[in-house]
Amino acid sequence: VAQQPQGPVLKVALVGGGTVGSQVARLLRENADELAARSGARLELAGVAVRDAGKTRVGLPLDLLTTDAVALASSGADIVVELMGGVEVAHEVVVAALRTGSSVVTANKALIAQHGAELHALAREHGVDLYYEAAVAGAIPLLQPLTSSLAGDRITRVLGIVNGTTNYILTRMGEEGAAFDEVLADAQALGYAEADPTADVGGHDAAAKAAIVAGLAFHTAVTAADVHVEGITSISVDDVAAAGDMGFVVKLLAIAEEVPGGICVRVHPTMVPRTHPLASVREAFNAVFVTAEAAGEVMFYGRGAGGTPTASAVLGDVVTVARHRVSGVVGPTLSTHAERPVLPIGEAITAYYVNLHVDDRPGVLAMVASLFAEHSVSIAGVRQEGSGDEATLIVRTHRARDADLQATIADLRESPVVRAVAGLMRVEGAD
Amino acid sequence: VAQQPQGPVLKVALVGGGTVGSQVARLLRENADELAARSGARLELAGVAVRDAGKTRVGLPLDLLTTDAVALASSGADIVVELMGGVEVAHEVVVAALRTGSSVVTANKALIAQHGAELHALAREHGVDLYYEAAVAGAIPLLQPLTSSLAGDRITRVLGIVNGTTNYILTRMGEEGAAFDEVLADAQALGYAEADPTADVGGHDAAAKAAIVAGLAFHTAVTAADVHVEGITSISVDDVAAAGDMGFVVKLLAIAEEVPGGICVRVHPTMVPRTHPLASVREAFNAVFVTAEAAGEVMFYGRGAGGTPTASAVLGDVVTVARHRVSGVVGPTLSTHAERPVLPIGEAITAYYVNLHVDDRPGVLAMVASLFAEHSVSIAGVRQEGSGDEATLIVRTHRARDADLQATIADLRESPVVRAVAGLMRVEGAD
Repeated sequence: VAQQPQGPVLKVALVGGGTVGSQVARLLRENADELAARSGARLELAGVAVRDAGKTRVGLPLDLLTTDAVALASSGADIVVELMGGVEVAHEVVVAALRTGSSVVTANKALIAQHGAELHALAREHGVDLYYEAAVAGAIPLLQPLTSSLAGDRITRVLGIVNGTTNYILTRMGEEGAAFDEVLADAQALGYAEADPTADVGGHDAAAKAAIVAGLAFHTAVTAADVHVEGITSISVDDVAAAGDMGFVVKLLAIAEEVPGGICVRVHPTMVPRTHPLASVREAFNAVFVTAEAAGEVMFYGRGAGGTPTASAVLGDVVTVARHRVSGVVGPTLSTHAERPVLPIGEAITAYYVNLHVDDRPGVLAMVASLFAEHSVSIAGVRQEGSGDEATLIVRTHRARDADLQATIADLRESPVVRAVAGLMRVEGAD
Repeated sequence: VAQQPQGPVLKVALVGGGTVGSQVARLLRENADELAARSGARLELAGVAVRDAGKTRVGLPLDLLTTDAVALASSGADIVVELMGGVEVAHEVVVAALRTGSSVVTANKALIAQHGAELHALAREHGVDLYYEAAVAGAIPLLQPLTSSLAGDRITRVLGIVNGTTNYILTRMGEEGAAFDEVLADAQALGYAEADPTADVGGHDAAAKAAIVAGLAFHTAVTAADVHVEGITSISVDDVAAAGDMGFVVKLLAIAEEVPGGICVRVHPTMVPRTHPLASVREAFNAVFVTAEAAGEVMFYGRGAGGTPTASAVLGDVVTVARHRVSGVVGPTLSTHAERPVLPIGEAITAYYVNLHVDDRPGVLAMVASLFAEHSVSIAGVRQEGSGDEATLIVRTHRARDADLQATIADLRESPVVRAVAGLMRVEGAD
């Protein structure tokens, strides 16, 4: 039985009464004593801003409802929790809260990816906290471990499956041979994909998360606009099956890593060896694989979305921020002291799998191989399949500059012996 | 290029100059600017206590060496890092440091599992930090996520592979059919197992870690003496192969979970379904699988031991503690406010796999099944194999009270139709 702890009362204002917001309100109420014992303060719900106060919401106290989000955010709560989503109004809400001296907890990846640097500066100026664990990989503790547990180490690379919708689609395409459109429709029916799936399948959701993680991992200001993005809409069942034949699975990876002269942040479909820990992350689960100089490889795995998992991450931040307010301090903030150049995709160091339809005659392999060599791209393996009109060369390269790989592909498309570049995908985790 | 940040100088005293200590000293020196930028203070190595100052140690500055560990710990450093191991002298060192007003970072699981409550009380009394991320699962961020990221959630269960030596041995027994003794000898040659492997193979190392994790997860004082321990020395290749035939792998799990009336903490060989995320944790890797009410299932994976991975975790704590000293605060400490009863293994809720040599005549299955039923143990599945003298019943139960399962086994041993209980192992993660 939890004791009834003493301690100050902290007012919590909740902006957004949807799936996550109503779970946060429920857990604040149901676990009040336990949260008080852990945070050193009683957390009192001071108000909930919703879009339509007329709609009944299970678990939301009606007398606390308001439709004026900015007014609630400016009302002097100790902690403002922003869960409304979108960028413009959310930005106004968070700015109002920080300026009023409220600490802010948000799950809004798009907001942080776009305005993180400005909002962190504002938080510093007003001596308050800005936390957003729920913005990346839902319930999986990731941002606090990156900024605290790994704070004494040098992170060199982050590979993440950070979008559950696309992972669900790719899992089913790989395991059942189902077509993209078919699986997308199922995902929409199951609530794993939204009616307009563009942000997910186009890779933009993952790109916002990649920008946030890259900023924390490399102590550098990174926005979503710095991230190279390719979605999964052009991935066919054949691509996934061909990858499977070679012992790979296809994943949409968010990648942030050191490259010569800076860092590079990218999101694209990627072939991952079946033996890699990320390969076994199925369906709507998320996982983030971090490589650090001293720690080696560590991975974080769990549910990346959903009302209660996201609420768990939000409440973890609320308890952390409450502890800070009780002690009169703020936590470590995003530090961009390293100011590393964020380089374009051409500077990434990656490997390619290439499927070429070629003429079936002597000397073709030599001509193709020489094109790779001209761009200093070393070949890891070649397999020749079929003959006549079906003649195919499957080439897997060693790691090389992406620009050199792209130049090689451009030359291959022009080569008289290559009839088509039929398949092309980056490979990670195979070295 | 990192800027040369301003900020106070914090003195760091290092007690222990072995594998981990020399890595910590190296990283403090090589990453000095970056650590200063992240912690807000320059971290200056004030002294290193070693067992034998005459031995040359790569990377340890000779003028800083001393053999008087307690004197160094009492010298007023801002942060004392205890990496000497053992319990008695380490206890004296940490007590001296805390009493002097130094914050302490340690990787000493045995010390914390035995004296954690007393040392936390001392740290509170003197207004300093006591951190020990490296004590459990090496480089894997676990304790900070449990106490911060999941602070707003209710953890119901922790399943961990927290001993690399035994996981390496069980992996090779399962994948190659190699015998325990043979693999242990290899593990010793590779440096994965110590000359005296008792602490690892007997489960005591895992038990100390289980006690620490249980304390943090359930806000309750738990010591190693509260943990039920069974090691892997009696596991045969046949046990592992039989588990494999049924789609399971054998892992030494540390388990801390809610049970009716309290919590139960135990370490024992366990059958885990091959589809469970813990099943794919191979060789010397560690992983901890946490179930929380709102977050659902999250897993942390990485290297559980080794000089540099452990040094990474130590330095993460050093940076966190340094930030606190710069701000003049202390972090959240072990809170035992929940004071949940720690119950014996008999109160655990688990499932059993049982391999019975039985008489080959009609009615045997009915008699065996009735013994399970008498103790309210429900059978999940039965397979009959062989005949005559080879007649075998393989029974898998549903989850039940461990005491009821043990009573059932005792009755089976007495039963006239049962010739031997040939195999017996708990099963987790199958429900």
